[in-house]
Amino acid sequence: MPQGYVVGVGKTRFGPTSKSLPMLAQEALIAALEDAGLTIGDIDAFIVANYLGGPNEGRLHLNSVVAGLLPGVNLPGWRVEAACASGGVAVHQALLSLSRYENVLVLGVERMSGIPGMLLTKNIGMAGDLDLDQGAGLNFPASYALVAQRHMQTYGTTTRDLELISLKNHENARRNPLAHFYHKSVVQADIDAGVTVASPLRLFDCCPVSDGAAAAVISRDSRDGRSIPVLGSGLSTDAISLTQRTVHTSFQAARDAAATAYAQADIVAADVDFAEVHDCFTIAEIVAMEDLGFCEPGAAVSLIRGGVTSRDGSLPVNASGGLKAGGHAIGATGVGQVYEVVRQLRGEAGDRQLARAEIGLTHNVGGVGGTCAIHVMGSAS
Amino acid sequence: MPQGYVVGVGKTRFGPTSKSLPMLAQEALIAALEDAGLTIGDIDAFIVANYLGGPNEGRLHLNSVVAGLLPGVNLPGWRVEAACASGGVAVHQALLSLSRYENVLVLGVERMSGIPGMLLTKNIGMAGDLDLDQGAGLNFPASYALVAQRHMQTYGTTTRDLELISLKNHENARRNPLAHFYHKSVVQADIDAGVTVASPLRLFDCCPVSDGAAAAVISRDSRDGRSIPVLGSGLSTDAISLTQRTVHTSFQAARDAAATAYAQADIVAADVDFAEVHDCFTIAEIVAMEDLGFCEPGAAVSLIRGGVTSRDGSLPVNASGGLKAGGHAIGATGVGQVYEVVRQLRGEAGDRQLARAEIGLTHNVGGVGGTCAIHVMGSAS
Repeated sequence: MPQGYVVGVGKTRFGPTSKSLPMLAQEALIAALEDAGLTIGDIDAFIVANYLGGPNEGRLHLNSVVAGLLPGVNLPGWRVEAACASGGVAVHQALLSLSRYENVLVLGVERMSGIPGMLLTKNIGMAGDLDLDQGAGLNFPASYALVAQRHMQTYGTTTRDLELISLKNHENARRNPLAHFYHKSVVQADIDAGVTVASPLRLFDCCPVSDGAAAAVISRDSRDGRSIPVLGSGLSTDAISLTQRTVHTSFQAARDAAATAYAQADIVAADVDFAEVHDCFTIAEIVAMEDLGFCEPGAAVSLIRGGVTSRDGSLPVNASGGLKAGGHAIGATGVGQVYEVVRQLRGEAGDRQLARAEIGLTHNVGGVGGTCAIHVMGSAS
Repeated sequence: MPQGYVVGVGKTRFGPTSKSLPMLAQEALIAALEDAGLTIGDIDAFIVANYLGGPNEGRLHLNSVVAGLLPGVNLPGWRVEAACASGGVAVHQALLSLSRYENVLVLGVERMSGIPGMLLTKNIGMAGDLDLDQGAGLNFPASYALVAQRHMQTYGTTTRDLELISLKNHENARRNPLAHFYHKSVVQADIDAGVTVASPLRLFDCCPVSDGAAAAVISRDSRDGRSIPVLGSGLSTDAISLTQRTVHTSFQAARDAAATAYAQADIVAADVDFAEVHDCFTIAEIVAMEDLGFCEPGAAVSLIRGGVTSRDGSLPVNASGGLKAGGHAIGATGVGQVYEVVRQLRGEAGDRQLARAEIGLTHNVGGVGGTCAIHVMGSAS
């Protein structure tokens, strides 16, 4: 039995904008309500997913900020923060909340533009441990670089494999008008010219930071043929720092969340037709595929080399462009993944519509695997 | 039917400490598990309530920080932030989550010591609107001062009424070994000597900022005679800034949350035996009493003057000392209120045990009424 239904979705473009955080939130909120054919009066509770509103801009208490966009509505609502997995966690919470609330609005929003680079790096680093990571400079490019190095040592993964992911996702984003790099053609020469960020990761191995918002209305009951059943929802956590873990080529939280989501959906990994995974760095897409059970550990690269995860392959991964090229508006990312899967499952994905889209999956990670939320959506078998 | 049961509670002392945020969290977590007679292996999910971990210390992604305290446990978990109502919202979420998870650990934690005063004032101010409040210097003492002024103009409330609340709550805290001001005797001369913070609020009208943590295990089923039924849980929001509202002597979010909680508990306000309310400023206790329906608007002062809300009165309010004297460890406060009500309902409140404690209420506010979470606990009628 479905855990709930996504009855409406909305999303702004991800990328730099002059719009304020509340303006972005309002744009996605209105789009999701319109898509659902509902008004705010039909909503029973709302959840705001955001990561850096406080450190970046001095904006906390965002449930009350959003309440201010809806005068007189006075709904139950809160903000959730789980680093880059905030959006996916909000979707999980919305499903839990259906026990009491019939229609729950999930709103992910983030604003990153205009924050000086060093400050932004420091703020994003707050998703790593204060004592174990931040003081040592073990920020996220560095952490994922360590994961990449260990993956290369263990399985023979190469920088060429990472490049293939970047090229694929940038090509996919060219079909997605809401993608951060929709307008940007990225070819091998661009990748070759990329500076090293944290070896082996170079510029085009890293996602951008984006402004943006995404929203979804999640309901206890289906409204119509466009309502998308959520078949499984898995959430798990792990110790925050790589220094607290023994395995560095896989994220236990992702494996646990996937097992839970598959069991709840009563499917196996092979039943998934397409996936939006958390490719904050190219290596993260490889780890995601292995954690999701799309292949054995170390075997993701053969799928990538064989074109299996390309949009015309048998298991398209990040057909939207992913975080890498679609953009990463941190608090909005997990909700944006749900937007994307819903559009595909409805056959409304336009130029990026996949040939086969019956079961779709979202995979949203916080930190370097400290949190993972996974959702399976589509037709119940 | 109860919404769930509080089967265990734990709390650190609120007040300045050299313990780190994770150490505080661990202390409360262990105490709550021990009190419940459970181990972490019995817990199915956890929620961390925290307000300023990011801006104060660079600690975000706190669900993963807590996961690091529990090696190999890898539970579903997240952090919630709703300004000073974070803890109460976490309790509400835990109850919602019982649809899926049998035993949910709620952990509120905050660390405020050692942050320079101006920075802390700025950070706390993030619970007000960036555009409407913060730039104008409308921080929380200023906002509550405006509420007090309007209440005085409308209802004839006096500074003497505010003093009576401060004296009562400080006296109550002298019986609470976990209170911030347990050791501090406060008499009229102290109050008279207090500097004006934001007129009419003086030093002893303002709660301190505290370090501290509180935890509760909330379960689908009762474990034993010490399990406390949660009869009602109400949550509501309002626009964040006073400038967005027409009424300034009452918080609509609190009225809505109270109505919801009473309806769910199938009680009326007169059935409440005692309450822990959000007295971040003395005026807030007056507004709380009126919003909770303990009396008509403007009539709270007569209850206070008559000793009705004193610990030996017929409706004790903040027998713990409240935020005013018990302390305000922001993210922990709402969970700490639940700790206190549970102790009273069990008859385990020691020197501060109330004579009549069958139905207790918690009232937890974020910002200047932007969020309110209310819980009713005790014996079902």
